[in-house]
Amino acid sequence: MIIIRTPREMREWALAQRQTGKTIGCVPTMGALHEGHASLMREAVAKNDVGVASLFVNPKQFAPHEDFGKYPRMFEADCAMAEQIGITAVYAPDVETMYPDGYQTYVTVEEVSQGLCGAARPHHCRGVTTVVTKLFNAMVPHRAYFGQKDAQQCAVIKRMARDLDMGIEIVEMPIVREADGLAMSSRNAYLSPEERQRALCLSRSLFRARDIMELGERNARKIIHAVREGMADVDIDYVELADADSLKPVEHVQGTIVLAAAAFLGKTRLIDNIKFEAK
Amino acid sequence: MIIIRTPREMREWALAQRQTGKTIGCVPTMGALHEGHASLMREAVAKNDVGVASLFVNPKQFAPHEDFGKYPRMFEADCAMAEQIGITAVYAPDVETMYPDGYQTYVTVEEVSQGLCGAARPHHCRGVTTVVTKLFNAMVPHRAYFGQKDAQQCAVIKRMARDLDMGIEIVEMPIVREADGLAMSSRNAYLSPEERQRALCLSRSLFRARDIMELGERNARKIIHAVREGMADVDIDYVELADADSLKPVEHVQGTIVLAAAAFLGKTRLIDNIKFEAK
Repeated sequence: MIIIRTPREMREWALAQRQTGKTIGCVPTMGALHEGHASLMREAVAKNDVGVASLFVNPKQFAPHEDFGKYPRMFEADCAMAEQIGITAVYAPDVETMYPDGYQTYVTVEEVSQGLCGAARPHHCRGVTTVVTKLFNAMVPHRAYFGQKDAQQCAVIKRMARDLDMGIEIVEMPIVREADGLAMSSRNAYLSPEERQRALCLSRSLFRARDIMELGERNARKIIHAVREGMADVDIDYVELADADSLKPVEHVQGTIVLAAAAFLGKTRLIDNIKFEAK
Repeated sequence: MIIIRTPREMREWALAQRQTGKTIGCVPTMGALHEGHASLMREAVAKNDVGVASLFVNPKQFAPHEDFGKYPRMFEADCAMAEQIGITAVYAPDVETMYPDGYQTYVTVEEVSQGLCGAARPHHCRGVTTVVTKLFNAMVPHRAYFGQKDAQQCAVIKRMARDLDMGIEIVEMPIVREADGLAMSSRNAYLSPEERQRALCLSRSLFRARDIMELGERNARKIIHAVREGMADVDIDYVELADADSLKPVEHVQGTIVLAAAAFLGKTRLIDNIKFEAK
């Protein structure tokens, strides 16, 4: 496995792979890899001739008060996991390479960015779409793999890739959970044992909501109310029921919807969601 | 010469060319081709294995009150010129293909977009950077050719390509002028004979300003004043003297500057500029 540090070298390497007829599957990450990332990397390796993972903690998607500084960084362990899975190249540029003095170009997805986390984290989405565009231009992938856990990220990047004619297939992979249901997240490392226990209410409330939808409930207000009741022990940021593609809130469950929740456990903000298809 | 109508087919064609080791030079245009465009296409054909030109009148770079509806369209003549020059493929998508219902993704270059025409045409630059990103993603060029006449467009696209790690060389080609000095423009077709005559004051005033800079004048206020004096017969939109890369106005001429003017002749807005390098 090779480690590449600059967009120019990354792009040259990727174009050389393509030149020999190989397909490229990429997994953009911020490192601190867990089983969720592993599932994406395994799929990228299985469905493409070469798998590339990026490790870059992107300052543009954190607000000044957020956890950019303390976000977990474990480069050696991340590379070991990637190599063990069969990733061919890791792309790990530094911040100065990605955003040199005078940097000023941004990619925005206007409406989908307003959904879910958009209200609480106004610059977050723009940071994600901008860095993913840069990573795509460097890794020149045929397919890119993202986890459903950040449902907004998946929706925004699908929209962006389609709108900008990127010609990249965006593959959304299911959430990977701990045995007790907690969605895997690099930020779970921040939780105290007590917070870790309380955090379970996110997934449990969402699963209970899925049960009542399967029993026929279609009223979004009632479903959201049930989720919020189950999350009484945490500081809720939002609970939303939205169309899975547009992320526009819906009043009535129809087609494919996403039911998403965000909450604070102490200073740690966690997100989780389920998708549901109404027949 | 082949004509391609969709981003998917364009990208497949371009990637197939690259697969065989060929380099691609592209010329994004809004059609209504004149000698200025011809000079770009000739360079693209000369310096690359294949030349691709796009013909697309981009609604996103016109404000509602501007001339999108009446912008000259002459597809057959444009294709004939491109073929005669040796262009291998013309990319001519329609508006619905480029901006289907639900379209919502934009690329913005924040600071450089504020210079020159940025004040008078706030959405213009965003429309240009967005469509050029889409055209680049479809044509997958090694090099792209733009005319210096739209100095802001050149500066913004260079910045965008660098910031987003596009890996495309942006080549800026000199302004092509009529025998009497008028910069070639598709919009010159709008001018009445009387307006055509009055329009000469743009290039003449800029050339005179170059003369006084060559004689040693470095005070931007004095240079701009001289240009404005020479444009007394037209409705001036702006005259600006700015750093050629950042487009920030300068008070003192140093390094490479652009001296740019925009003016209305009746309803027709024309632009022109010169670049000057202070030793």
